[in-house]
Amino acid sequence: MSLSMPKGYRFSVAQAAIKKPGRYDLGLIVSEQEATVAGMLTKNRVKAAPVVLDMKRLRSARGQAVIVNSGNANACTGESGMRDAAEMAKFVALDLNLKPSRVFVCSTGVIGTPLPMDRIRNNIPSLMQGLGKFSLTHVAKAIMTTDTFPKIVSRKFTFQGKKITLAGCAKGAGMIAPDMATMLGFLITDAAVEKTALRSALSEAVAQSFNIVTVDGDMSTNDTVLCFANGAAGNRPITTSSSGYRDFANALQGLSYDLATMIARDGEGATKLVRVTVMGAPSSAAAKKAARAVANSLLVKTAIYGNDSNWGRIVAALGYSGAPLKIDRLNVSMNGIAVVRRGLGTGNDAKANNSLKKKEVNISIHLNSGKNEVTVLTCDLSEDYVKINAEYRT
Amino acid sequence: MSLSMPKGYRFSVAQAAIKKPGRYDLGLIVSEQEATVAGMLTKNRVKAAPVVLDMKRLRSARGQAVIVNSGNANACTGESGMRDAAEMAKFVALDLNLKPSRVFVCSTGVIGTPLPMDRIRNNIPSLMQGLGKFSLTHVAKAIMTTDTFPKIVSRKFTFQGKKITLAGCAKGAGMIAPDMATMLGFLITDAAVEKTALRSALSEAVAQSFNIVTVDGDMSTNDTVLCFANGAAGNRPITTSSSGYRDFANALQGLSYDLATMIARDGEGATKLVRVTVMGAPSSAAAKKAARAVANSLLVKTAIYGNDSNWGRIVAALGYSGAPLKIDRLNVSMNGIAVVRRGLGTGNDAKANNSLKKKEVNISIHLNSGKNEVTVLTCDLSEDYVKINAEYRT
Repeated sequence: MSLSMPKGYRFSVAQAAIKKPGRYDLGLIVSEQEATVAGMLTKNRVKAAPVVLDMKRLRSARGQAVIVNSGNANACTGESGMRDAAEMAKFVALDLNLKPSRVFVCSTGVIGTPLPMDRIRNNIPSLMQGLGKFSLTHVAKAIMTTDTFPKIVSRKFTFQGKKITLAGCAKGAGMIAPDMATMLGFLITDAAVEKTALRSALSEAVAQSFNIVTVDGDMSTNDTVLCFANGAAGNRPITTSSSGYRDFANALQGLSYDLATMIARDGEGATKLVRVTVMGAPSSAAAKKAARAVANSLLVKTAIYGNDSNWGRIVAALGYSGAPLKIDRLNVSMNGIAVVRRGLGTGNDAKANNSLKKKEVNISIHLNSGKNEVTVLTCDLSEDYVKINAEYRT
Repeated sequence: MSLSMPKGYRFSVAQAAIKKPGRYDLGLIVSEQEATVAGMLTKNRVKAAPVVLDMKRLRSARGQAVIVNSGNANACTGESGMRDAAEMAKFVALDLNLKPSRVFVCSTGVIGTPLPMDRIRNNIPSLMQGLGKFSLTHVAKAIMTTDTFPKIVSRKFTFQGKKITLAGCAKGAGMIAPDMATMLGFLITDAAVEKTALRSALSEAVAQSFNIVTVDGDMSTNDTVLCFANGAAGNRPITTSSSGYRDFANALQGLSYDLATMIARDGEGATKLVRVTVMGAPSSAAAKKAARAVANSLLVKTAIYGNDSNWGRIVAALGYSGAPLKIDRLNVSMNGIAVVRRGLGTGNDAKANNSLKKKEVNISIHLNSGKNEVTVLTCDLSEDYVKINAEYRT
């Protein structure tokens, strides 16, 4: 996969031994000029300090840099956590001669432990010296916690004769739920985009990507997706009524969807990517309830891990989902193999079991009770999920 | 633990090789005289055939026998499943000279596979011959699926000079959620109890026992708790205004709570019983939301399994629970050791880690925002949960 990079951005990483030494755990993205910024933040009532800081920053929709650390979430750290987050922004602002309010801050990792500010401070010079020597892929690596691979993608399109590029990186793994969770996403583009248009395109993109991912149903204190548009491509700013808006929004959504798929595929301990599609629901809310109940069911997830087309567990999950369900209208298929028709088994279980050995599993559920459809991305559940999470802090 | 048995009941079991041979998988409880019966059934919209049958039976509040099988849930089996459930009742009714409407039917096991009716039919004679030779403990064994031990308890009290005995058995293990799930409970007493009083006492008991258990958040198609009161103790029927009602209700609740605790302790792959208590909630609904979010969080459950007092995961779960939360009022303790005070870590994590090695873990959460309290019973999550459920049908 070849990557294209938007113009006017520089990247850096450093090893600050935030949780443990020997890996990049500090990342920096800097735009050469001030950019329009939009963001989507966690809906968890407990918000990490950097989330609270970024919420304020987003009001102006202006920014030029983001500093991010892994290994420590700076969450449940009280007043001193807020001071630490502000200080991280200040370090960067001072060295780059920016207003601190133009520097965003993100943290991911363990909750409840103060950031090792001395080690972060000591690594700011090397972070600055690295600018231009590292790529977005390095940043993607620096933000990994239990992720097993870095997640980075790009997209291109042309607007007013200008080549526009978008790129993004993300981290996910465990604690991912619909409405985002311990996921960070940084999307950058060289397009000039007016702030309302950027917010609208991002909101649409996130709804169809990061917000349809669920790994374990837990929603974190730190989720953040930030999108920078610095205008280095030289186009006239895209507005919601521009001819280029649809292209831009589609590119942003495609980018986000690819990252979200990588997050689901890389769920903690996951061996398979699972897409759960519910069709024929009487409302959009019902479709979501049904799809999430199936995608979050431990029994469904372990059955898929075990190559067991145990559709009874899918039906049971639909039954308690809260979505209206007429059992004699229900059809379910796995990787295109019908396993339930009108609420009864079709006898195709052996064939379906075999198809579950694939690394991608598509579960299609038709309620035949309306016209609403939704897809949720998730993964299977293996013993490794338990191992990873029983040992995370130790 | 010594068990007392209510008068006027006989028990039997048989090996019908419903899922596999070599174990008791058919059970029968018969009262010598017709009893008042109350029941609580699954709220899952997908109800197994025997659940639909028992719902009808419960209207009369009269019954004399219950036949139960493990290994097959007779769920998602359509019209023929309904016929099979009715036939099971008929077999018993014929041999015992009862009306079929007085015979309840319960099934637990795999969903979507027709019952092997020939093997059930062939084993009815041996089930009848066994009556009086087996005990409630045998029935408790016959209803086990992934349970690792039979669950049986009893209680006694005196009313109007008559000794009243209650006994009960249950099965649980995986797929247990608040509001019951793949759990069967059979409660029997020799008290005479008027039907409204029996319903009221059972409803109260279940709310404070089986409905506060959660193992994996899944709710099944087959949950059933039935309570038989046959009057063999010779008391005047207990009504809601009887002096004995409170004693009876308390005994029934104690019995149910003990069974529920056994179910939580025996959650699939569980190594620890976990009690999550939320205090100081602004409403009962908020207390429940908060406690269930913590008890259902895979991250919390795996941390407890790993002896890791990772209270950040508890705080994060409270944050997404939907319950109102003022972080600076939040206190959390684990086995009496304060780990969070006013939303911040206390530094007692090492001590708390050590206390998590116990087989019982009590998590106390004080929201300091009201007067409502609730306790939920659950268990930790180990690799064995995944193993059991990845291999359940194979």
